[in-house]
Amino acid sequence: MTGTVYLAGAGPGAADLITLRAARLLAEAGAVLHDALVSGDVLAMAPQAKLYNVGKRARRASIDQRFICRLMVRLAQRHRIVVRLKGGDPHLFGRANEEIAACRNAGVPVVTVPGVSAALAAASSLGVSLTQRGVSRSVAFVTPSAALGGPENSRWAHAAAAADTAVIYMGALNAERVAATLIALGVPMQHPVALVESASWADERITRGVLGDLPALAAETGSGPALIIVGDVVGDDAGLRAVVNAA
Amino acid sequence: MTGTVYLAGAGPGAADLITLRAARLLAEAGAVLHDALVSGDVLAMAPQAKLYNVGKRARRASIDQRFICRLMVRLAQRHRIVVRLKGGDPHLFGRANEEIAACRNAGVPVVTVPGVSAALAAASSLGVSLTQRGVSRSVAFVTPSAALGGPENSRWAHAAAAADTAVIYMGALNAERVAATLIALGVPMQHPVALVESASWADERITRGVLGDLPALAAETGSGPALIIVGDVVGDDAGLRAVVNAA
Repeated sequence: MTGTVYLAGAGPGAADLITLRAARLLAEAGAVLHDALVSGDVLAMAPQAKLYNVGKRARRASIDQRFICRLMVRLAQRHRIVVRLKGGDPHLFGRANEEIAACRNAGVPVVTVPGVSAALAAASSLGVSLTQRGVSRSVAFVTPSAALGGPENSRWAHAAAAADTAVIYMGALNAERVAATLIALGVPMQHPVALVESASWADERITRGVLGDLPALAAETGSGPALIIVGDVVGDDAGLRAVVNAA
Repeated sequence: MTGTVYLAGAGPGAADLITLRAARLLAEAGAVLHDALVSGDVLAMAPQAKLYNVGKRARRASIDQRFICRLMVRLAQRHRIVVRLKGGDPHLFGRANEEIAACRNAGVPVVTVPGVSAALAAASSLGVSLTQRGVSRSVAFVTPSAALGGPENSRWAHAAAAADTAVIYMGALNAERVAATLIALGVPMQHPVALVESASWADERITRGVLGDLPALAAETGSGPALIIVGDVVGDDAGLRAVVNAA
């Protein structure tokens, strides 16, 4: 028997921001491998499944990616439906390709299920659109390279500097370098910035300022995953604040 | 009485790619205003609601945005829950800000609910991640300006050209100008391209080629909404194809 592996997005955090499709797969799964950042409320949608926490977190000991791939393939030999649940969306900064490749190489059918990426939950919490007529026709989603120095290592920043709105994933721990790199590429120090920690979670926290203050803003964040949003759409003069997560 | 307006993402098309939160709001709504591209299966989640089709489509007569805003505000005076349902996610190319502003100006509480944007469903159908270690650390979502000519009007393209992966929304009707603009900014004519029409719908169609062929690829598309994805992640050597929408 060979089951199917579903690489599914769990959404940004709040359990009801998962898709109906992912929720149905969780209810039918024999086994679920999940990231550290998937909430207990989401995992509760799979009470019948064997759960495997294979989460990696910044600055913590990480589980080897090859181990995850081997485990996924092994579980597909025992269960009809295996869900590999990733925070946000699997196609954005989720290393989906490595896990797709592992399944394919082992002859295991693999399907991805898209999810709500954290940036969209952050926009919802801020009450702003990431695009706006006359203000922003382009949004870049980027993540800084881990390595320091060298022109190769600032390539991620070129798209962020060229876009009207930039969303930087996994950048808060390196906020000083992120700000310095963008400023070196010509982004004004006074450009508006919002930092959204744990978007859509109960302990969500939003801080705002300008690019030059980013290191100070980031120093105030806690241990939750944080997004940095840079651009006029998060400026005070955007002036449009929806009620935050009141749904 | 003043109800609340929920600007909610319907997801990319397939009804089960909507979030649990949006589905619950639809089941409770007194009135639903929806785009042309929201499927009947999604609207069927609100059998009790009065439905208003306020959809705009390229090259067709459009409903005035001010009319939509006035209608939304008026409906909030009659219903506790009004859902303004947008294809994909409301914060990306959804004109959410104009509708948020209209509600705020009228004193109507407004909340946005994020959704799965079409680009993520397209990535799922292609079986590729939009980001990949060593290949892509940046993804730009852009839409070309409607007006022709002038350096101002190619600003959208700079982010696309600088990003490792570019997703161009609402560009297929102007594929020749899109390709020419990117090539003029230095993107190689041989850069891999995928065109995904009606991502996640039953009549989804995928064509692939290189940037130089984009006008020919686009000429083959039908009337559904089409995304253009440019970058190595959609190249043949990505070599990773998940089963398409088999969920």
